[in-house]
Amino acid sequence: MSQPSPISGFPEWLPAERIVEQQVLDALREVFELHGFASIQTRAVEPLDQLLRKGETSKEVYTLRRLQAEPDEPDDESSALGLHFDLTVPFARYVLENSGKLKFPFRRYQIQPVWRGERPQEGRYREFVQADIDIIDKDSLSFHHEVEIAQVMADVFARLPLPPVRLLVNSRKLIEGYYRGLGIADVDDAMRVVDKLDKIGAAGVEKTLVEDVGLSSEQARGCLALAEIAGDDASVRDRITALGVTHPLLDEGVDELVRVLEGTAGLRSDRFTVGADLAIARGLDYYTGTVYETRMEGFEHLGSICSGGRYDALASDGRTTYPGVGISLGVTRALAPLFSRGLLTASRSTPTAVLVALPADEQRAACTEVAAALRGRGIAVEVSPTAAKYGKQIRYAERRGIPFVWFPQGTEGHQVRDIRSGDQVDADPAAWVPPAEDLRPTITGPAAASD
Amino acid sequence: MSQPSPISGFPEWLPAERIVEQQVLDALREVFELHGFASIQTRAVEPLDQLLRKGETSKEVYTLRRLQAEPDEPDDESSALGLHFDLTVPFARYVLENSGKLKFPFRRYQIQPVWRGERPQEGRYREFVQADIDIIDKDSLSFHHEVEIAQVMADVFARLPLPPVRLLVNSRKLIEGYYRGLGIADVDDAMRVVDKLDKIGAAGVEKTLVEDVGLSSEQARGCLALAEIAGDDASVRDRITALGVTHPLLDEGVDELVRVLEGTAGLRSDRFTVGADLAIARGLDYYTGTVYETRMEGFEHLGSICSGGRYDALASDGRTTYPGVGISLGVTRALAPLFSRGLLTASRSTPTAVLVALPADEQRAACTEVAAALRGRGIAVEVSPTAAKYGKQIRYAERRGIPFVWFPQGTEGHQVRDIRSGDQVDADPAAWVPPAEDLRPTITGPAAASD
Repeated sequence: MSQPSPISGFPEWLPAERIVEQQVLDALREVFELHGFASIQTRAVEPLDQLLRKGETSKEVYTLRRLQAEPDEPDDESSALGLHFDLTVPFARYVLENSGKLKFPFRRYQIQPVWRGERPQEGRYREFVQADIDIIDKDSLSFHHEVEIAQVMADVFARLPLPPVRLLVNSRKLIEGYYRGLGIADVDDAMRVVDKLDKIGAAGVEKTLVEDVGLSSEQARGCLALAEIAGDDASVRDRITALGVTHPLLDEGVDELVRVLEGTAGLRSDRFTVGADLAIARGLDYYTGTVYETRMEGFEHLGSICSGGRYDALASDGRTTYPGVGISLGVTRALAPLFSRGLLTASRSTPTAVLVALPADEQRAACTEVAAALRGRGIAVEVSPTAAKYGKQIRYAERRGIPFVWFPQGTEGHQVRDIRSGDQVDADPAAWVPPAEDLRPTITGPAAASD
Repeated sequence: MSQPSPISGFPEWLPAERIVEQQVLDALREVFELHGFASIQTRAVEPLDQLLRKGETSKEVYTLRRLQAEPDEPDDESSALGLHFDLTVPFARYVLENSGKLKFPFRRYQIQPVWRGERPQEGRYREFVQADIDIIDKDSLSFHHEVEIAQVMADVFARLPLPPVRLLVNSRKLIEGYYRGLGIADVDDAMRVVDKLDKIGAAGVEKTLVEDVGLSSEQARGCLALAEIAGDDASVRDRITALGVTHPLLDEGVDELVRVLEGTAGLRSDRFTVGADLAIARGLDYYTGTVYETRMEGFEHLGSICSGGRYDALASDGRTTYPGVGISLGVTRALAPLFSRGLLTASRSTPTAVLVALPADEQRAACTEVAAALRGRGIAVEVSPTAAKYGKQIRYAERRGIPFVWFPQGTEGHQVRDIRSGDQVDADPAAWVPPAEDLRPTITGPAAASD
């Protein structure tokens, strides 16, 4: 094989980058579990007809086929399987399939790769890792879970080595109530046009609302006035009220939006802020209550790195409907641009904290015992692969960022050297421990420094 | 959607089973990292021509296609992509692709799903998780790493909640040297026949060796005599010597086999044993030194749950050859039969250790503060979803196996109840901790009890 090239859209990490990704995934898991979310994993494949229920994603699906499948193989389901493009469709199917064995409300997290056959670009990949949390109940789901999802993500972002992030919140009820209050009949069509505000501008939106959706100029300007409102606290209520539109669903949506803002007021920091942004329309088609998006400072061009919302029917089997609320963090989407800019890396490319030097090949068994003693106290250790000169063994450690080299010196006792400072001290394999900050690789870089 | 059915060969776990799998994967990761193996993950796909280099696996490969791909799409590589069927082919490619950025010898572990379009049965799946470790070097790789791989797996199996396992070791050099000493010209053909010993018996092997491979009866009986040898220590050397065959490669192979047995002598227990088994032939075609297989007690019908060996050319780019040694544990293969027999489960189906009861809806914010205080000390907590009667809230915890319910009782102070014993005591949200054994779900079942 000659030297292979990467495949566009299928990113892979070098060992130091993978250490960062692992620590990020560890932090996600820890926070999710502290909040009582249970892990599940679903198979990579779903029946194609399930994947194609959302029509617009159909072009992005990878289908599977056994290379040697017979064209008419009757019992081969693989001809109708595709790779999942998100973790929501598989989760909804999992809930229905196991509904008798799960306890509701069911809180789950799921961290897995997903696949989309899109044209790759920064922030958009053909294979990427998502981390999802959802709370799903039978028949009805209390609103307070919509506040809770934002609270969990506040805990998450406080722990991740990312640039500051801002969680943006909107409410489908608020928008729909306001539009109905304006007398707009086709709320969905109007929302889809307002969603293009970034692309076609206010004048373009107003023109399209009037000419294509059939709104009056006053209605169109009313839609634009609402989309301009953003804010961090209950003052958004006053600005909405000042627009003079009334509708019961609008009141309900405003109340809920304010509860999300107030429920996260104590969790904000210079790393994590929360704000209402009534221009967010993406996903309002699917969602029925609160909607979340997330912007990463300095990386606004990525769009939202963490999105979700409330569905009144995340799943349904005809008899029972399962409402849910959840959010999905694009792990690869957030990390890849930081890796490619060198903003995030690990203090070493290996878990190893100590290299046990090998004085001579005959002493490998003794060195392996030293290593085992250190491992017994949770210290990651390698024994030197060769009994080369000590200078060469030290360079082996240096090249990997391994901070300590252990010298087993027979009757004279053991010594350990911090190869960064050159300090070398007597040490007991049964007792020595490295400083806590050297035990495992640490994350370094400007993004981590904002900690 | 009506209630969906599982897809044969694509196993999924319920939350309690997933907790077991997570703890198994955590143990694997911890042991691998203590031994200095760095994590990598590779993309799910490889170019089809790479996947088909081992001819015999070609029928098992799933190929990928974008659903909406144009037949003549020039820049769409997806038409020539397949899902990886193991982690060795992707690792070899990763090493070549990143050879300039990796430090050799390179020690990596990799835990990921793989896919094979085989007919599903117990122990054989279409999607399953493997955990691989390999040590790879440039140009040459020291033999002692072949001992090390067995030592690492001894540490692994000491930690896993499996029935007792036995690591079986053989040596390609030993077999080849012995066969050459017998004057056999076509060693590979003879080995392939001996590999069928289980299926066609000694008489069938002898007949085939004579009639199809062209061996003399004496040579054929010599092959069978070697295959009968098994043993836990250096005494296998005497039994091999007693067969009266001599060859330099045989001596080298016997020496190496004995070094693996002796290097793991101190690591054996009632959970993990090691033995030479000279009937193991599987993989001798690919491997060039030590070969490993693993049997799980009571589950011998699964075959080997953990296999590997030494390659002299794990990868090669034409200029540099990369010899390697590694082993692959079939995580799904080992766990699925234990799950299906109810031999292995978790003490609860959720990470939650404490349910904070909700006296009234107005107190949700106060209850959320109690939960945050407990989480700050690493305790997984949920707040009750509803302010139902306390009896109902306690049943919510009971149904999930959550051991503690916290009652925030305003001015009278807080209390926490162990709902298994009914014991209820005063508790301070800023100080209380559950017993260590209740902090996280524990693994239960006969397989774990053998611990």
